[in-house]
Amino acid sequence: MALTIGVDVGGTKIASGVVDGDGRIVARTLRQTPADNPEKVAVTIADSVSELAAGLDVEAVGVGAAGFVDETRSVVRFAPNLAWREEPLREKVSELVGLPVVVENDANAMAWGEYRFGAGRGETHVVCVTVGTGIGGGIVFDGALYRGRWGMGAELGHTQTIPGGVPCGCGNQGCWEKYASGNALLRHARERASADPSSAAHMLGLVDSLDDLRGEHVTAGARHGDPAALEAFDWIAGWLAQGFADLAAILDPGCFIIGGGVSGAADLFVDKVRAGYAERVTGRGHRPLAEIRVAELGPSAGLVGAADLARSR
Amino acid sequence: MALTIGVDVGGTKIASGVVDGDGRIVARTLRQTPADNPEKVAVTIADSVSELAAGLDVEAVGVGAAGFVDETRSVVRFAPNLAWREEPLREKVSELVGLPVVVENDANAMAWGEYRFGAGRGETHVVCVTVGTGIGGGIVFDGALYRGRWGMGAELGHTQTIPGGVPCGCGNQGCWEKYASGNALLRHARERASADPSSAAHMLGLVDSLDDLRGEHVTAGARHGDPAALEAFDWIAGWLAQGFADLAAILDPGCFIIGGGVSGAADLFVDKVRAGYAERVTGRGHRPLAEIRVAELGPSAGLVGAADLARSR
Amino acid sequence: MALTIGVDVGGTKIASGVVDGDGRIVARTLRQTPADNPEKVAVTIADSVSELAAGLDVEAVGVGAAGFVDETRSVVRFAPNLAWREEPLREKVSELVGLPVVVENDANAMAWGEYRFGAGRGETHVVCVTVGTGIGGGIVFDGALYRGRWGMGAELGHTQTIPGGVPCGCGNQGCWEKYASGNALLRHARERASADPSSAAHMLGLVDSLDDLRGEHVTAGARHGDPAALEAFDWIAGWLAQGFADLAAILDPGCFIIGGGVSGAADLFVDKVRAGYAERVTGRGHRPLAEIRVAELGPSAGLVGAADLARSR
Amino acid sequence: MALTIGVDVGGTKIASGVVDGDGRIVARTLRQTPADNPEKVAVTIADSVSELAAGLDVEAVGVGAAGFVDETRSVVRFAPNLAWREEPLREKVSELVGLPVVVENDANAMAWGEYRFGAGRGETHVVCVTVGTGIGGGIVFDGALYRGRWGMGAELGHTQTIPGGVPCGCGNQGCWEKYASGNALLRHARERASADPSSAAHMLGLVDSLDDLRGEHVTAGARHGDPAALEAFDWIAGWLAQGFADLAAILDPGCFIIGGGVSGAADLFVDKVRAGYAERVTGRGHRPLAEIRVAELGPSAGLVGAADLARSR
Repeated sequence: MALTIGVDVGGTKIASGVVDGDGRIVARTLRQTPADNPEKVAVTIADSVSELAAGLDVEAVGVGAAGFVDETRSVVRFAPNLAWREEPLREKVSELVGLPVVVENDANAMAWGEYRFGAGRGETHVVCVTVGTGIGGGIVFDGALYRGRWGMGAELGHTQTIPGGVPCGCGNQGCWEKYASGNALLRHARERASADPSSAAHMLGLVDSLDDLRGEHVTAGARHGDPAALEAFDWIAGWLAQGFADLAAILDPGCFIIGGGVSGAADLFVDKVRAGYAERVTGRGHRPLAEIRVAELGPSAGLVGAADLARSR
Repeated sequence: MALTIGVDVGGTKIASGVVDGDGRIVARTLRQTPADNPEKVAVTIADSVSELAAGLDVEAVGVGAAGFVDETRSVVRFAPNLAWREEPLREKVSELVGLPVVVENDANAMAWGEYRFGAGRGETHVVCVTVGTGIGGGIVFDGALYRGRWGMGAELGHTQTIPGGVPCGCGNQGCWEKYASGNALLRHARERASADPSSAAHMLGLVDSLDDLRGEHVTAGARHGDPAALEAFDWIAGWLAQGFADLAAILDPGCFIIGGGVSGAADLFVDKVRAGYAERVTGRGHRPLAEIRVAELGPSAGLVGAADLARSR
Repeated sequence: MALTIGVDVGGTKIASGVVDGDGRIVARTLRQTPADNPEKVAVTIADSVSELAAGLDVEAVGVGAAGFVDETRSVVRFAPNLAWREEPLREKVSELVGLPVVVENDANAMAWGEYRFGAGRGETHVVCVTVGTGIGGGIVFDGALYRGRWGMGAELGHTQTIPGGVPCGCGNQGCWEKYASGNALLRHARERASADPSSAAHMLGLVDSLDDLRGEHVTAGARHGDPAALEAFDWIAGWLAQGFADLAAILDPGCFIIGGGVSGAADLFVDKVRAGYAERVTGRGHRPLAEIRVAELGPSAGLVGAADLARSR
Repeated sequence: MALTIGVDVGGTKIASGVVDGDGRIVARTLRQTPADNPEKVAVTIADSVSELAAGLDVEAVGVGAAGFVDETRSVVRFAPNLAWREEPLREKVSELVGLPVVVENDANAMAWGEYRFGAGRGETHVVCVTVGTGIGGGIVFDGALYRGRWGMGAELGHTQTIPGGVPCGCGNQGCWEKYASGNALLRHARERASADPSSAAHMLGLVDSLDDLRGEHVTAGARHGDPAALEAFDWIAGWLAQGFADLAAILDPGCFIIGGGVSGAADLFVDKVRAGYAERVTGRGHRPLAEIRVAELGPSAGLVGAADLARSR
């Protein structure tokens, strides 16, 4: 079976890899993202692809990028970190590399990767939630990636959790990602640490000042038993559980997958998400419970997913 | 093209009709629902079908029923108004009538009817919200009805709108249907009328006591300018708009359809729903706005939809 | 010590009593309220007083009434159940009976009665919350009844508990009394009973239909272990606890008193209120916990309080 | 009339002044706070007082400090910024300076200063809300400062605004100060600026990075018309209005005073607070509207208030 290339375009790095039909990465390359120059991003993607494709039988290219991608998987309408506006990325890259190209939202690509080769194997209806700075999402229904009418579906982090709640960068208030993301975890830990440093002794020992506290310190604090850190994980677990219950009412998936940076500490909170979900999902007692799983492919999920989507384009 | 029969099983009536390939009802029958005897319901459905099918070329039967229908469209797992529990309705009716049968959730059937022959014509991604006593839903994606992994998707009324909010019969608190349904409309109008009868003069003139107030009186009050009634419609319009914004973040449909009993008064609130949706949907300014339409098929939507689903089974 | 007379003006009855300096009722009378004729109410009050005062050394009269009473304790500005608007009740009654009169909001009178002779004895800072159909309040600070700048303080039931929450007759949304009153208890029990009658078996056996369910049935259901009833009591207990925590942040009282009709079933929920309060009050660990007590004077609290306020006028 | 000395103990500075009976400061001194050594703070206070008192007829000393002060105005139970725990400050300072001393919570002292000589002159029932990093409060009832049973009243910033809302340093969630303080203003402006830098052009021109943004920049941005800054002020105005409406339901004051650091920009938001309050206060239409005023004494309010409280001790 022919190979495909997956490209994951981040705000600082462009990771590319040659992927075979079983989702294995057989070659890789990594470049800096020329983030201030959207024109150069296409060229850098093309260079990465050309370098990897040399001498191989590569069939197509899949590019995953943070942003709104149109329903034809061609144009990036809006990418906050890359200054793209109505960027015809598919056409540009395809001309430069002479191969078919598909463009996909990065969280969608990640969800597809996990569905095909990771935690979602064997399921047909999967909701993947990437918990990082914010919350992204990807949805697989009946074995197909769901994009919506205009390619803007699965923006799961921007459903309203609390009317009148915390303002969100998207212009709304009380969005789910303000309560259940890595930033929410950090905000909670900082508040508690500031009010009662004794509850955050280990964490605070790792940094010079509270401003320097990052998610990794909260994780370390939780592993050492800092009450402030444990409480912060419980907090996001509760809101993740509530969000999953709401998504199940709408989508009734067979499983949820928790991915993204915070999933690296999933052992600290996934059981609480499962318990909270079981207590809150509507129709409980009359329905099977969706499984709640942790992503398995790590940071490569997007690259692998994009490559596989190119294969089945 | 052959005909199919659609059956809409309600708590008090069973409505059946012969439907052609264009969604036209060419014959009808209506019977009482023997609601206290689940066994007799299957027999009554079969009798209706046999009566209608006599002498016609009927290909298949579609049955819509309020309740959780399994993903194979065969078994009604739980139907609150009909005392069905794990009822193998497809098999029972099929044996009695000698035709292929599919069973479908009633809100799904209604959504399909509107998608094929009503307000959703020409769209590929449709979310239909039935606003009655509670809120039901049906979702069409890429031209296919979405059921979820276990047939329990699109229970849109039971997503959480307000944490810690009004208790719901489903066992949760703050469900959307507690804020945006016909019952919510009535509750709001009663509260205002009780506190300030002068704001509800027309409505109160129609009933002996506040306990007798029904949705039709609130509608009449609104048409006569009762402030309490107008405010009640504004209230559900605001929460419908918020719910649509959240659904768009997840599903990105091309249009929403408002159906159900309250949609008969849609002229009193649909413009406010549209305006509220446009103000709240995430990514506004970077996405086309989904249309918000009013259902066109009225109470027949479920019957027509069930018949058509039987055709494409 | 001379005697005083207290009058409690309700929507259906006017209860009057002669009260001694120790809060003992030494004589009583009860009359129908001519509720549709505000003029006759003053006359009926005066008749009751004259009848009771005959042959006794009565010093003054205190009248408690539901409504907004001005800061001079003379005029009832607005009384929803009695059609009083800017009613100079003090002057009218005083002229008719030839004694000094003070008028007081009924929940204030009740709080004063409990403070002086009931559950609040020995405390100097008391917040009394009357939990009935709605929620009323009375506040005693440093041994004095608190009325506010215009006599409208202590309307505790109309603080906002949930932004965008249930509409209230006062014109706002999400008022505390919508979540923690007897009506809230009943609403919760009805919702659960409707959704799952088996969880409400005892309650439902007491009534012909769900519409007939009243607070007394929920209490009986809870005593027999109906899960729907127990859950309803837990629900109001949680919201009472939260409201007390908020009031403590503002008022820092030495004790709270739970009065009103629902307090007759206080054994079913007061421990949960105490536990919830202890978990939620700000500064916990650095402050003494206010006691949470149950009212002791029952329905006579208002009459006794009004009489005593007349004494110390 | 004799003079008194007021001392305002902050986390970085100790401001002291000699105040006459009309609230005029006739002499001042300012020292660094030895914040890491609670013992030295008392000595520094005493030194300031002795220096100022030399040669004057000083009657008493009032000390205002952030923290929980007991109901006898003697002991600081807990002061987050000064490491005081059960500190007998009154006794210590009194012994060192040989004068009567009273200790008061700083927000209480500020409220008293404004009541006596600032924006509250002529009122008898005043609620003063200091809007800075967090929210503090002071309450004057019937011309007396309200302290509560244990000296912990008027912690207005820690009432719950949103159930399940933003975690607060006090250990609760959704506290008012998380939505209506200077920090809330800043958080809102940062979110909007991050999502849409063009809406924050002036603000962002004043700082190197978003992390450096401070309240003064948001104020400057608002004055230059940055939409992100204007929206942030509107947001806190709305939550201040809601909080005032809730406080009026409980306390019915004649006026509210907005003080604290954010009150320096009050012209940008106070009209919105007034309008929002008028729309939300319960009983509107049946009650006079409390005035909403801006503090007049600036940063000296606490010192002046503490001095005056010493006079009337």
